[in-house]
Amino acid sequence: MSDIGEDSLRLHREKRGKIETRGKIDLSIHKNLALAYTPGVGAISTYLAEHPTEAGALTIKGNSVAVISDGSAVLGLGNIGPYGALPVMEGKALIFKQFAGIDAWPIVLNTQDPEKIIETVLAIAPGFGGINLEDIAAPACFEIERRLIEALDMPVMHDDQHGTAIVVLAGLINAGKVVQKELSALKVVIVGAGAAGTATAKLLTIQGIADVVVVDRTGVIEKSRPGLDGMKLELAQSTNPRGVTGKMEEALVGADVVIGLSGAGHLTKEHIITMAQDAIVFALANPTPEIMPDVAKAAGARVVATGRSDFPNQINNALVFPGVFRGALDNGVSRITDEMKLAAANALASLVETPSIGAIVPDILDSRIVPAVASVIR
Amino acid sequence: MSDIGEDSLRLHREKRGKIETRGKIDLSIHKNLALAYTPGVGAISTYLAEHPTEAGALTIKGNSVAVISDGSAVLGLGNIGPYGALPVMEGKALIFKQFAGIDAWPIVLNTQDPEKIIETVLAIAPGFGGINLEDIAAPACFEIERRLIEALDMPVMHDDQHGTAIVVLAGLINAGKVVQKELSALKVVIVGAGAAGTATAKLLTIQGIADVVVVDRTGVIEKSRPGLDGMKLELAQSTNPRGVTGKMEEALVGADVVIGLSGAGHLTKEHIITMAQDAIVFALANPTPEIMPDVAKAAGARVVATGRSDFPNQINNALVFPGVFRGALDNGVSRITDEMKLAAANALASLVETPSIGAIVPDILDSRIVPAVASVIR
Repeated sequence: MSDIGEDSLRLHREKRGKIETRGKIDLSIHKNLALAYTPGVGAISTYLAEHPTEAGALTIKGNSVAVISDGSAVLGLGNIGPYGALPVMEGKALIFKQFAGIDAWPIVLNTQDPEKIIETVLAIAPGFGGINLEDIAAPACFEIERRLIEALDMPVMHDDQHGTAIVVLAGLINAGKVVQKELSALKVVIVGAGAAGTATAKLLTIQGIADVVVVDRTGVIEKSRPGLDGMKLELAQSTNPRGVTGKMEEALVGADVVIGLSGAGHLTKEHIITMAQDAIVFALANPTPEIMPDVAKAAGARVVATGRSDFPNQINNALVFPGVFRGALDNGVSRITDEMKLAAANALASLVETPSIGAIVPDILDSRIVPAVASVIR
Repeated sequence: MSDIGEDSLRLHREKRGKIETRGKIDLSIHKNLALAYTPGVGAISTYLAEHPTEAGALTIKGNSVAVISDGSAVLGLGNIGPYGALPVMEGKALIFKQFAGIDAWPIVLNTQDPEKIIETVLAIAPGFGGINLEDIAAPACFEIERRLIEALDMPVMHDDQHGTAIVVLAGLINAGKVVQKELSALKVVIVGAGAAGTATAKLLTIQGIADVVVVDRTGVIEKSRPGLDGMKLELAQSTNPRGVTGKMEEALVGADVVIGLSGAGHLTKEHIITMAQDAIVFALANPTPEIMPDVAKAAGARVVATGRSDFPNQINNALVFPGVFRGALDNGVSRITDEMKLAAANALASLVETPSIGAIVPDILDSRIVPAVASVIR
């Protein structure tokens, strides 16, 4: 185990949970107990049974988000189940509170059956104001999110998809400025066609970047490739206008940007050397990037980003999800639209006044981030 | 709406939730973010995937309880659904934290189908250390609890059943002392054969009280009554040794104790007058007792208790559930046995050194309660 792993294990053992609950009413006074619990609470129960839409104004529902995972795709670690997922979901709940004042609770699931996941989330939804799906593997994640968005009158976001897509676009907007290349003219290769890769390809396309090529374990996704279905078929139709075929190596030749978003392939210095001059490398696998920043730089990359907090340019969903849900809860938004995602990416990018090689996204602790993102979720 | 209802509504509007989350790690330091979230958390996820039984030591699981309701039997208000249930579950979560330091989260369900409730609880269980079922109607509650106890390796308790049974027995032990009648010789009438009435009848019987008669909406539960099945058939076989038949009125004649545990019948002064001398009246319906204490007293009752915090002798589950789960979590207990329930009742009763008409149970804010109850859940 790495040094940081050892330190983390020690911290987790000491804390036994990174979040806790806290009462907002002092029960050491009898009168408060009578108001918060019986008999006073009976009036609230009766009232809410008759006025269910006021639950957000009278209960935790108005400020709470469930952070839900089945543990099927945890970080870049793969299918490690609910207990493997739990410390990550807790970490997100911690970030939700400290960054955005949102009361989030981790829910890790004992099932990976999409139908059961959907049923479970629908069953527990009434007590929450929003649903953050997390670390659920593709392709199940697409169907699960789509069905939940349709069924629930509250914001539902699979953060691995849209949080990632938003923060990648924000980083790319500023990285393009640093290397003085036009955003819409960038040749982009996305390594990984899972949740994050698929959503990122879509959002970059919607933003107007025409030349996006997506690569999965088999190779480049292209219309003529046999056996494509579902989201990969959609990707084949909406990306890769030059009709690139072959392996990742072929796609990378001459590319301006490579975005690593899965364990589908490791990037080596030989890969980076074949890219265009002033290459942009986002190696976002967590906890281990597809290529280490110093190696990428040595091979000619100009701007390098990872998902980690211990390197510069942390392209991490934590720049996005707190603000998205803060905005949705505050502004009564029950669907996060593509327009909102683009606006969030641009709002985030614009917080960096003078983008530079080591600063294409704001520092994750920048207190302007949540208000800026939240303000466009409306 | 009553004055206390108005005050409660004002408080709930102001607080917008009676509990919140709080981070236990300060994320305003970059190093902490790296340990609590990526990259450090990756080591914890990998470790827990390989050592799932250590989840309690490294995450919130070790100190967290889900407070779960389908809203089918909320307080004495009936089937008012998940939004009606939510403020009560929040109140319980508040009590869990302030009385016992337990991090409890309310989960209100969008289904009242027992199979779906069971599936949902099984699906979300991994992140919790215990399951407090709440305000689920009989008879579904019996099957739901039984199946979950069987399936889960953690404490599962339907508080309406067992929390109530334990606190009622505690109160009865001391009320018997006040009126100087032998506990085991008491003639007890339980009004209500729902979750609370059924579990209370069982626990009193196990404690050695032979003469327990249970009454439901139809009348006295007795072997010869046609149409009995399930738990009611079990009750007919295990209670009512004198073979009392008829309505509640018949059962009350000469009874030493009446315990109101449902909206199955209102008690009037005429009912109390027919009871034995020095009658004990527990009118526990919430928020409105079956008979008001002053009315029962005027009709001859010697010891009167309600479930409310604004009268003396508050016989409320809040005296029990925080200590039961504190003990179970601390002592690694995954099944709450009948022996533990009897021990908890006796531990609670023994906290009142000199029981009197106005003090048969300790004050709900007595800080000795949780340690005393927790110490016998082992």
